[in-house]
Amino acid sequence: MNREMVKMTWTEFRDAVSHRPVILPVGSVEQHGYHLPLSVDVITSHNLSLLLAEEIDGIVAPAIQYGYKSKPSSGGGPLFPGTIDLNGDTLVHQVYDILAEFARDGVQYVFLMNGHFENEAFLAEAMDLATKEFPITTAMASWWDLIPQDVVAQVFQEVPFPGWDLEHAALTETSMVMYFAPELVHMDRYVEEPTFERIPYHRYPVKPGLVPPSGPLATARTASAQKGQMMAQAVVQACAKIYEKTKK
Amino acid sequence: MNREMVKMTWTEFRDAVSHRPVILPVGSVEQHGYHLPLSVDVITSHNLSLLLAEEIDGIVAPAIQYGYKSKPSSGGGPLFPGTIDLNGDTLVHQVYDILAEFARDGVQYVFLMNGHFENEAFLAEAMDLATKEFPITTAMASWWDLIPQDVVAQVFQEVPFPGWDLEHAALTETSMVMYFAPELVHMDRYVEEPTFERIPYHRYPVKPGLVPPSGPLATARTASAQKGQMMAQAVVQACAKIYEKTKK
Amino acid sequence: MNREMVKMTWTEFRDAVSHRPVILPVGSVEQHGYHLPLSVDVITSHNLSLLLAEEIDGIVAPAIQYGYKSKPSSGGGPLFPGTIDLNGDTLVHQVYDILAEFARDGVQYVFLMNGHFENEAFLAEAMDLATKEFPITTAMASWWDLIPQDVVAQVFQEVPFPGWDLEHAALTETSMVMYFAPELVHMDRYVEEPTFERIPYHRYPVKPGLVPPSGPLATARTASAQKGQMMAQAVVQACAKIYEKTKK
Amino acid sequence: MNREMVKMTWTEFRDAVSHRPVILPVGSVEQHGYHLPLSVDVITSHNLSLLLAEEIDGIVAPAIQYGYKSKPSSGGGPLFPGTIDLNGDTLVHQVYDILAEFARDGVQYVFLMNGHFENEAFLAEAMDLATKEFPITTAMASWWDLIPQDVVAQVFQEVPFPGWDLEHAALTETSMVMYFAPELVHMDRYVEEPTFERIPYHRYPVKPGLVPPSGPLATARTASAQKGQMMAQAVVQACAKIYEKTKK
Amino acid sequence: MNREMVKMTWTEFRDAVSHRPVILPVGSVEQHGYHLPLSVDVITSHNLSLLLAEEIDGIVAPAIQYGYKSKPSSGGGPLFPGTIDLNGDTLVHQVYDILAEFARDGVQYVFLMNGHFENEAFLAEAMDLATKEFPITTAMASWWDLIPQDVVAQVFQEVPFPGWDLEHAALTETSMVMYFAPELVHMDRYVEEPTFERIPYHRYPVKPGLVPPSGPLATARTASAQKGQMMAQAVVQACAKIYEKTKK
Amino acid sequence: MNREMVKMTWTEFRDAVSHRPVILPVGSVEQHGYHLPLSVDVITSHNLSLLLAEEIDGIVAPAIQYGYKSKPSSGGGPLFPGTIDLNGDTLVHQVYDILAEFARDGVQYVFLMNGHFENEAFLAEAMDLATKEFPITTAMASWWDLIPQDVVAQVFQEVPFPGWDLEHAALTETSMVMYFAPELVHMDRYVEEPTFERIPYHRYPVKPGLVPPSGPLATARTASAQKGQMMAQAVVQACAKIYEKTKK
Repeated sequence: MNREMVKMTWTEFRDAVSHRPVILPVGSVEQHGYHLPLSVDVITSHNLSLLLAEEIDGIVAPAIQYGYKSKPSSGGGPLFPGTIDLNGDTLVHQVYDILAEFARDGVQYVFLMNGHFENEAFLAEAMDLATKEFPITTAMASWWDLIPQDVVAQVFQEVPFPGWDLEHAALTETSMVMYFAPELVHMDRYVEEPTFERIPYHRYPVKPGLVPPSGPLATARTASAQKGQMMAQAVVQACAKIYEKTKK
Repeated sequence: MNREMVKMTWTEFRDAVSHRPVILPVGSVEQHGYHLPLSVDVITSHNLSLLLAEEIDGIVAPAIQYGYKSKPSSGGGPLFPGTIDLNGDTLVHQVYDILAEFARDGVQYVFLMNGHFENEAFLAEAMDLATKEFPITTAMASWWDLIPQDVVAQVFQEVPFPGWDLEHAALTETSMVMYFAPELVHMDRYVEEPTFERIPYHRYPVKPGLVPPSGPLATARTASAQKGQMMAQAVVQACAKIYEKTKK
Repeated sequence: MNREMVKMTWTEFRDAVSHRPVILPVGSVEQHGYHLPLSVDVITSHNLSLLLAEEIDGIVAPAIQYGYKSKPSSGGGPLFPGTIDLNGDTLVHQVYDILAEFARDGVQYVFLMNGHFENEAFLAEAMDLATKEFPITTAMASWWDLIPQDVVAQVFQEVPFPGWDLEHAALTETSMVMYFAPELVHMDRYVEEPTFERIPYHRYPVKPGLVPPSGPLATARTASAQKGQMMAQAVVQACAKIYEKTKK
Repeated sequence: MNREMVKMTWTEFRDAVSHRPVILPVGSVEQHGYHLPLSVDVITSHNLSLLLAEEIDGIVAPAIQYGYKSKPSSGGGPLFPGTIDLNGDTLVHQVYDILAEFARDGVQYVFLMNGHFENEAFLAEAMDLATKEFPITTAMASWWDLIPQDVVAQVFQEVPFPGWDLEHAALTETSMVMYFAPELVHMDRYVEEPTFERIPYHRYPVKPGLVPPSGPLATARTASAQKGQMMAQAVVQACAKIYEKTKK
Repeated sequence: MNREMVKMTWTEFRDAVSHRPVILPVGSVEQHGYHLPLSVDVITSHNLSLLLAEEIDGIVAPAIQYGYKSKPSSGGGPLFPGTIDLNGDTLVHQVYDILAEFARDGVQYVFLMNGHFENEAFLAEAMDLATKEFPITTAMASWWDLIPQDVVAQVFQEVPFPGWDLEHAALTETSMVMYFAPELVHMDRYVEEPTFERIPYHRYPVKPGLVPPSGPLATARTASAQKGQMMAQAVVQACAKIYEKTKK
Repeated sequence: MNREMVKMTWTEFRDAVSHRPVILPVGSVEQHGYHLPLSVDVITSHNLSLLLAEEIDGIVAPAIQYGYKSKPSSGGGPLFPGTIDLNGDTLVHQVYDILAEFARDGVQYVFLMNGHFENEAFLAEAMDLATKEFPITTAMASWWDLIPQDVVAQVFQEVPFPGWDLEHAALTETSMVMYFAPELVHMDRYVEEPTFERIPYHRYPVKPGLVPPSGPLATARTASAQKGQMMAQAVVQACAKIYEKTKK
């Protein structure tokens, strides 16, 4: 059964909207170190969406490819070439319009699968604004927030867990891409650097030299496709439960 | 050599920006009849971008998946489920932000490969606004505008050319998808309907019943992958020439 | 009977709104060669609106004088002094507000008579947004789109028809102004230049030297008031039919 | 010599911009009683602009026809049919864009001749925003603010001066239209009503029944073309002095 | 009884909203001479709001601290350090959002107590936009507009009344702060300067040297706390009457 | 020495701007349980700003009183009466305008002291946008992010630390208000409820019944002014260090 909206005809979509939820992957175009591609957040959110679609009989909408601005303390920041950032308002309007249109087409529920930390506040804003105007239910989660403690413990057996904000281009993201798109991981180019010390403030203009030169904020050395799979399964199970809880 | 930005690391991108143009495919999520998927405009613009990248040593940026509103007289209109339309301002801001960021990263030139007629005015607006603020050169073309008369004549040997505005989900688009993604074409579902009579005005609210029920505005019966290939090659040659003319 | 809103008192307007359509002329301030004034698009759309008002018992609203940005390939572009361009969003909001207010006043129907090609997409956007919020029917047409083939043939007996996009400050516009405001046509200043070769792409920033130095994109040599009249009559007949078709 | 931009060709405009100021009339579409047309504010500001252009060798730009919202205490308010109001932001953007374009064309100075009280704050906002971005000098005045005490005394010989905020569709505006466009004044329809008692607050939503049913806020009985002329001359002299003071 | 929202718990607020009006003080951060603090407009509007709350059993919302741009002719203008101006649109959106939220919480009526002349147009715009969308009644007044002639006469016994637009940082405002926050008045630093001559136009960019160097536009020499009290009482009585008139 | 901008005259401010940093407290109007006032976030951020001003010779700007929308999982959400939420864009524009004006006045550095979690993303957006246009350095921190582990351990001796996102109207905020404004704390109304179970997703529209009826997301039982003081001192020390690090 076809689960990707981009591959569906309009009649296939029409026949599905009344009873199937839509899953909207949201990513970014952002540096992910020497060893991972710029599209890690899309790869992850899109593939998790496909798995979730199997689980809840959903339809996966075309991914939002460009996301909100990378911040030094969670994504390395805007100074890396290839990090292409949208203004907050731009992302809000894009998601708002898409939700409005899904509502007009009769969709009842949209699950936003977020793959980029900095998107969160703006996705929530769009959801709030759209659901105030249109009769549609929406939920949003970032995949790392859904990984249970025991899975975290298993993934971080060899190295300490640095906290989710530092897990940029690090062990968990690398494992995810190893699982979903191994051909895009270049561990041979990976350079181990000291774990970035968390900055508890934001400074603008962003200052060069704050984050490790290669980009990751913590170690990716012990990444594996198997760890990626373990996390992906846990995330999908958690999303399915969220869907059950939030759909009514 | 890697030509897709989504597959590049940030250092690969950094090493390319000073001398390689960026190609930005722009599509839509829009009905394309019983026989074509909702993503025809992305499929076409993305694949033409890849071919052009070979020709001019370019980098293909992640496609803009959602486009401006479908109009009855050129795309069948907003009443088909699955047609997911952005407001004009939303598209303008998205393209503006992306161009601004490419400029900040040192990109000299962006070619916007448009696959959806209704996008044109808003892409041009974004290009005008962005180039007034940032030192970057941009050009935009819609692929159908680049097909020379003789290729049109060859493609329309069996049926009359209805004009480009009616070529929605019809002979040329179907041929393009047959060439680029044949597995997504369902000619078995195709229903021949009378060519839509061109409407020389716009009415809002959009009235149901204006366009043929299946969606295409003209016949797709004689489509073929070979015709798609012929057009694609002509488009890419024309784009390469535009690049040469506009880059300085 | 008074057909111009600017000359009506509020009670005259009040007594008319429930059963008479409003016609809103939309123009621009744009170069039109050495021989035509900057206001060609307003002169034409305003006068066509007056004629149409006779035909359908309409009220002519004050014209929108400033329009969207002139493009090189259809209006000569922004580099000519005297071309005063609005941003797209500005035009959209202006038309939106006006339509909203007409709806609040009880107007049932607004016909937008467009005299400037580049306005089209933004007028349609405003109409879509306004009619989603307010109970009002709107239609928009550009006059050149309404001239039937046989009239085109008669007008272009002496010279080839270059296509509507090149008919800027050329034979048809000049004829229209000769008919509506002959005192503003200076054929003695007219300079024949080679027909501009159509550019199938948009480049920003706009490059100088693309269009003929005087401004027109095709010949105006054979213009006449009589041709203007012939076209005007055809346009008004077509508009009246559109009104009949779209009003319910 | 041609002083109206709408009648000028682009070369005439080009030859003038370096040394001649532009005058931009700003009006509204607003009820003005049973006896005056909806366009009083445009008629007045446009004609004063023409007179000023003679005085200071200026160019009169196309008038801004639609203005900001009518308020009960100064214009009768939005409840009269035919009062077509723009949102504040819309007016700001329109004036901003126009000033930006004049600056890009090399215009040094724009004088905004305001004919509608409620426009003032939004015109000033647009002027502030535009002059922060573009090298252009702007000044704005509302004509009533420029009438000296002795002229006020002469105009109000027969009746008391109610204050400028109540002079809506009353003695001064009626006299102005009698002078500039006598054919549009219908004193036979004029109904004398008690002077409106000034409201020192704003209530929204606007409540019906606050202002006199016919629309004027004070008496127009003693209006005359001669009084209009006297005021017009005083205004133009004052504007010419403002121009001298503000141009450097 | 607690009248300040900032000191109330959410249950205290909840129990009040159905029957008690909300009073929203609006100020600015603006120069007020050598002798008064930057927050005069907040001090005045906040304290008047507290008094009014006693009178009409109202709740005082947190003040809007930053207001619209100071103009030379009514506030000395933007060139004084410490004058922190919001764009008009920013103020409109802030007030709009606050009114929308009060409406969502069940508040029936909001009285905006304005302490800064330049805010007026933008407050009214926000009120108009918000009350078009939400079921809430709003009224707005500037305190100086509510002082009756006899009180004006008493306050201006020793010096001539210069008109309200020149009463910036002058006799009335100084008296108000003497009454409400005497510890913030530094009459020892006060410098008498010639009364500013009213400018009947606006020029942008704002030119230095237009207003008296110290900031006040008229004399404050005869200010006293007693005069402040007299005016405050008159204002509060007038506001209470406006509330009675406008609440239904 | 005067450290509060609201109490300073413009000359005092002028004399300070070149060498003293500005501290901008940002709060919200949000439910904080039965026992705390709606303005907890302003009380805390304003008082911390005053302490920091002593430490770094700063000036405290008027607080931003209204903040971004409360979310169920970190503030209880919008369903509590008295929670008055701004749209994200509104907050961004307000902070942007204020930063722009400080820059125009010659301020070199602004520290944003945030007291409301949900503000963070929008403050950072405003800082990014403003510092791209204006030559000013900005830093922002939320006070809870600055409390070192050992202070957390001391504060949470009697009860477990639930994580900062659940510390809404709980032990730490209550202690802060006990320290800064004890008269506004009503422990007699406090009701102990089970700690809210963290929700790792966002659902819109917000569903009633998700959070404890009284509002706090964790226990406030063991709060004390002394704990408030201990945290305040730690925060101020941390801010002073951030200032040193970020000012150049």
